[in-house]
Amino acid sequence: MEKILEDIVCSIQPLSREAMNEAQKRQAALAKPPGSLGELENISIRLAGITGNVCTEIQNTRIIVFCADNGIIEEGVSCSPRSVTATQACNMTKYLTGMSAMAKYFGDDVFVVDVGIADEYENDKILNRNILKGTRNFAKESALTRKEVLQAIQTGIDCVSQTKNDGFDLIGIGEMGIGNTSTSSAVLVGLTGLSVSEVTGRGGGLNDDAFLHKKTVIENALNTLKPDMSDPIDVLAKVGGLDIAAMCGAFLGAAKYRIPVVIDGFISVVAALCAKRICGLSADYMFPSHASFEIGYMRAIEELGLHPWLMMNMRLGEGSGCPLAFQILKAACAVMNGMASFGAESSINDSYLEEIRKYDSYSVK
Amino acid sequence: MEKILEDIVCSIQPLSREAMNEAQKRQAALAKPPGSLGELENISIRLAGITGNVCTEIQNTRIIVFCADNGIIEEGVSCSPRSVTATQACNMTKYLTGMSAMAKYFGDDVFVVDVGIADEYENDKILNRNILKGTRNFAKESALTRKEVLQAIQTGIDCVSQTKNDGFDLIGIGEMGIGNTSTSSAVLVGLTGLSVSEVTGRGGGLNDDAFLHKKTVIENALNTLKPDMSDPIDVLAKVGGLDIAAMCGAFLGAAKYRIPVVIDGFISVVAALCAKRICGLSADYMFPSHASFEIGYMRAIEELGLHPWLMMNMRLGEGSGCPLAFQILKAACAVMNGMASFGAESSINDSYLEEIRKYDSYSVK
Repeated sequence: MEKILEDIVCSIQPLSREAMNEAQKRQAALAKPPGSLGELENISIRLAGITGNVCTEIQNTRIIVFCADNGIIEEGVSCSPRSVTATQACNMTKYLTGMSAMAKYFGDDVFVVDVGIADEYENDKILNRNILKGTRNFAKESALTRKEVLQAIQTGIDCVSQTKNDGFDLIGIGEMGIGNTSTSSAVLVGLTGLSVSEVTGRGGGLNDDAFLHKKTVIENALNTLKPDMSDPIDVLAKVGGLDIAAMCGAFLGAAKYRIPVVIDGFISVVAALCAKRICGLSADYMFPSHASFEIGYMRAIEELGLHPWLMMNMRLGEGSGCPLAFQILKAACAVMNGMASFGAESSINDSYLEEIRKYDSYSVK
Repeated sequence: MEKILEDIVCSIQPLSREAMNEAQKRQAALAKPPGSLGELENISIRLAGITGNVCTEIQNTRIIVFCADNGIIEEGVSCSPRSVTATQACNMTKYLTGMSAMAKYFGDDVFVVDVGIADEYENDKILNRNILKGTRNFAKESALTRKEVLQAIQTGIDCVSQTKNDGFDLIGIGEMGIGNTSTSSAVLVGLTGLSVSEVTGRGGGLNDDAFLHKKTVIENALNTLKPDMSDPIDVLAKVGGLDIAAMCGAFLGAAKYRIPVVIDGFISVVAALCAKRICGLSADYMFPSHASFEIGYMRAIEELGLHPWLMMNMRLGEGSGCPLAFQILKAACAVMNGMASFGAESSINDSYLEEIRKYDSYSVK
């Protein structure tokens, strides 16, 4: 294993069992039937494990958006032209895209990072960490070298380090890159051995013929390049994208720096799965958001052992599920921090809890 | 049909088709693949139909919580004692319960209304519209008279009228009432003819024996009282609750006063279904929130023709799904109001949309 991977894997520690036990106790003492707030309870307990504090305060939130182009679009697998990657990356910094309009409304910071945009643009709000002006066409050759993949992963880790230093305490991971549902499907097949048709959708929107063609292109490339399922770096190099690799690095970085991190849709969840394959512990720091309309999403989130919170039929990407998920995470904190608890100095009538406990025969899951 | 029902049914108008058409056009012009924001797009279009404005601003949000006791708990169908209804109603006004802790965090107003609390309490923040100190035990007799049901419905309508006058532009409907999963299951069977076992869950938390007993009690009562499926008032009178009836009135009131209204969990969705049965148009003003863990929820929301947005395994009631759904509705407005659109005076490069349109071959649903 390369040094950078060894370093990151060694740096990732388990959740704090002690803080989680304390959080579980506090949840059990809140004035409600045990378990009745479902996922909101689980969230608060896992947040405690990440931060080490029984009660978490979420003040500053950021969505990191990794942008990169994909050589595979030469094969006609996308319904949008390459130039959209650069255009939308710029629009994100102006809060004009779907994700960023929500982020602006909710007060989430948007941090746009160029890890491989092909076209020229002028925008000093985009962090320039361009590794390559778009990947190579994986229908003809490996998309990236191993070294380029590792460089993108390191970029993702660095961006989270900077985000931690900037004072953010919750992050979301998004992307922009025309053609990246094709790379994500190919990477997911490469990691899991699932069939191409099980994990490939219409992306931004393909008609029937183009959709069939997309699947054939991916299938042929995987048969030719034969990525090594046991080696996520090999999979990313052969059929991946710079955005996915950098996002993978960001998920690893979130675990290293103990910041809770939200997965967006299909591309984001595939990157999260790459991170889990590199370091299993990293998944403990991840939270889901919405179930993407892209069919591969559900297979990938299942592999991560998570369940999406939101069913909104969204498939925009960009990190557009993150502003919504941030509100859910904040709600979980509001419950944990604001509800009356048994024995607390609050004005609640303690007899309520005594009564509830006496009558309650429902076992906590 | 009684005069009050005639009046409310006559007062409810369809959504504005014109505003919805304009909103649909605006959605189609936003800088994204058509349909890629899924439910967020549908929300913004329906909000336009409700308010008559293409772009909706949501500033002031309120959760109205109807509280009432249920005579059926004499049969041992609940795991919590009756006194919890009054205690938690009071705690809500102090923002100490699960729903109200979230509401406080997000800045939602909480409006607690006593329509039938049995026990004494002192709290001048609870609106006293007590109709009866708890319903009669429907295992022995009809829970309510027809007149009492209509009085509760009128109370719900009045509360929304006041809320409109108070300047709120989005409301959620919650409840507090020990025993009200039993009444809700009974009402749902009464309205739909579904079987008791299909729609009855463990409520706050019953063990196996008590759960079986709860179902038997409901089954026997329905067999004895034989509510008229075609007459929601008869169903509410025979096996309903004052909370459900008032909530039903609030859903009708939301349609009358053209305020978007959010459904919470099981009890709330059953009340919403009563409203729809009284006036079909009222359902156009309703939005879902989370899928309650209570099994009857999914059957009722399907009957309404809606799909829940949030899968959080919650079953607290109180209106606890509303603060979360409010954030989703606000996000839908943020997208509609904040995204770049084709031909707008924004700084977006219009060529993006021209390109997207040229390449895009995905038909809008």
